[in-house]
Amino acid sequence: MEHYLDNSATTAVSQCAAQKALEIMTKNYGNPSSLHLKGLCAEQELVTARKTIAKSLGASNEEIFFTSGGTEANNTALFGTAQAKKRRGNKIIVSSIEHSSVIEAAKKLETDGFEVVYIEPDRDGIIRTEDVLSAVDDSTIMVSVMTVNNETGAIMPVADIFSAVKAKNNDIICHTDAVQAFGKISLNVRRLNADLLSVSGHKVHAPKGCGALYIKKGIRIVPLHYGGEQESKIRPGTEALPLIAAFGTAVGEFKIDENYGKILQLNGYAREQLAKIDGIVINSTPNALPYVLNISAGRVRSETMLHFLEELEVFISSGSACAKGKPSHVLSAMGLDKNRADSALRISFSKYNTIDDVDALCAGIEAGLKTLAHR
Amino acid sequence: MEHYLDNSATTAVSQCAAQKALEIMTKNYGNPSSLHLKGLCAEQELVTARKTIAKSLGASNEEIFFTSGGTEANNTALFGTAQAKKRRGNKIIVSSIEHSSVIEAAKKLETDGFEVVYIEPDRDGIIRTEDVLSAVDDSTIMVSVMTVNNETGAIMPVADIFSAVKAKNNDIICHTDAVQAFGKISLNVRRLNADLLSVSGHKVHAPKGCGALYIKKGIRIVPLHYGGEQESKIRPGTEALPLIAAFGTAVGEFKIDENYGKILQLNGYAREQLAKIDGIVINSTPNALPYVLNISAGRVRSETMLHFLEELEVFISSGSACAKGKPSHVLSAMGLDKNRADSALRISFSKYNTIDDVDALCAGIEAGLKTLAHR
Repeated sequence: MEHYLDNSATTAVSQCAAQKALEIMTKNYGNPSSLHLKGLCAEQELVTARKTIAKSLGASNEEIFFTSGGTEANNTALFGTAQAKKRRGNKIIVSSIEHSSVIEAAKKLETDGFEVVYIEPDRDGIIRTEDVLSAVDDSTIMVSVMTVNNETGAIMPVADIFSAVKAKNNDIICHTDAVQAFGKISLNVRRLNADLLSVSGHKVHAPKGCGALYIKKGIRIVPLHYGGEQESKIRPGTEALPLIAAFGTAVGEFKIDENYGKILQLNGYAREQLAKIDGIVINSTPNALPYVLNISAGRVRSETMLHFLEELEVFISSGSACAKGKPSHVLSAMGLDKNRADSALRISFSKYNTIDDVDALCAGIEAGLKTLAHR
Repeated sequence: MEHYLDNSATTAVSQCAAQKALEIMTKNYGNPSSLHLKGLCAEQELVTARKTIAKSLGASNEEIFFTSGGTEANNTALFGTAQAKKRRGNKIIVSSIEHSSVIEAAKKLETDGFEVVYIEPDRDGIIRTEDVLSAVDDSTIMVSVMTVNNETGAIMPVADIFSAVKAKNNDIICHTDAVQAFGKISLNVRRLNADLLSVSGHKVHAPKGCGALYIKKGIRIVPLHYGGEQESKIRPGTEALPLIAAFGTAVGEFKIDENYGKILQLNGYAREQLAKIDGIVINSTPNALPYVLNISAGRVRSETMLHFLEELEVFISSGSACAKGKPSHVLSAMGLDKNRADSALRISFSKYNTIDDVDALCAGIEAGLKTLAHR
């Protein structure tokens, strides 16, 4: 039996979402831009999905733009804002623990002549409002801080950061990569004071290849793509309708409070069980999002352990899937020593996980520590 | 019964491709970048799809880069080349009858300071080699000419154009948007002498939201997106695996010669039947790709006719779906008068069409001309 505990990397598509994608692929397969009835039926699916996602974020429908995923949403936010605001200033503030799609976009902007300031987290892996604020000056055009970190589950005080930034200079564009928070805690773009917010489908039981960018009404973005008039020209190209409709279905299935309670229990149980194993250190702070649990396991290298666990059909990761096993920039930024960073493991839950999964994981890690420590 | 004759806008996903997408969404749902076995299984699907698509184009596997569709492939080709070559020159040559994802990208490059020359077609809608060649000079860095036009089916002498361009200056990057040719005529990147070639999934019975760009080994492109290491950093972001695997399945089902013969017959039959109807003019030349048949129908506006036909469950278009009913830049470039352009209809076939579909179409148009002409 499979124990998939790598849900921050990607999730299984829910049955309803998958069936919706299938229906769009084979029956309602029109092009939403086609003028005839078959196009109109397809367009209605697009409208429905947009409405569901807008509602889930407290946004209006015209503020949601579908993208090919979180990376494109983040890239569009950063490049689009930099291009739109370059005459006003050239300083961009990002946290140093962002996903690679923010970090690498920021680096590219540096080579294009922008000044990028990377804010370091505290030892709990949290970005502090005062640190962001002290970097803000007259040339600052944008601040980008993720809502929840993908490796540790640390929750950032995004609403607080954005309010403080806006109080200092209301023209600064505030973006949050909410990919790991979406569907797990309730998000409201107004309460967050966000101008831009990125989400992804495949982290919330929708298929890979689809995401969305919230762009607050009135905020101008220079698009990355050019072509037809889809997505109000912010994101041209025939819409990925099977994915988008499935994304809408998956978001429609959100039960944030119910699932949060369940995962909180599961996380608590995992922490309890792991505490009984010699050599385990918990890296996620107690107030982190319970969906993510980062630990270090003895002196066994992460990759060695995860390959040991995969033999037992227990799937976890050593960090971000997008980093493909490279040392974690997040854990180093938190000041973890090399041994602890090298043996880090990320366990990430979804609504489909059970106590059995946690038991299999703990038994696996315990066996792994015994077997691998003697090698 | 439905008669879908708008296959140049989009196609139904084949049963096998849809089942493959479903399997990936619900069973083999790992992240191809994950280091564990579930990631590896997903990665194998990616490898398989890449191999199939490479083979279909006569390319090697490392030369295929998955994108979110034809628009992104075309944008990456144009922006990527312009950025990579801007120190060598600033002139880009495109045909005036390209898809909007080439035309609008070219216009954006103009605003960025590049010189763009738009080559007009002859009266058959074909771009002539000598016209492209006479625009080539020392500052030219790129030529982009589509393989088959999406509105008329006109086939461009791309191999001839690219050879002539390369003979004049071997450093010029030659790109072709092969979206409408792919799967319909056999394509070989070496024989075409192409450095870059774009294809799309949803025109060949794969789902919307997926395409690919062929980049010849050794050709440098500046990426549009930044993030993880997916697609050799040319196109980061978690791969749209359900779509990509389905794309591979659909391409694996290509029966180019068999289907071409069938569609040639269907097109011939349609031309015969349409010729019997008063007021019909055929705009596609006899040697156009048989999958597309562009006609003008009396003095009835395209949109009026296609809404009349949709009542009979006959679905065709007035031109490119991405143009959403705006006057055709392709037909105007061919020199068609306003009446003929305003009444233009595009009929586009797929392997699933039958004689019944053509009969329903012709009966519908005949009825439409009678009914609508008197309004």
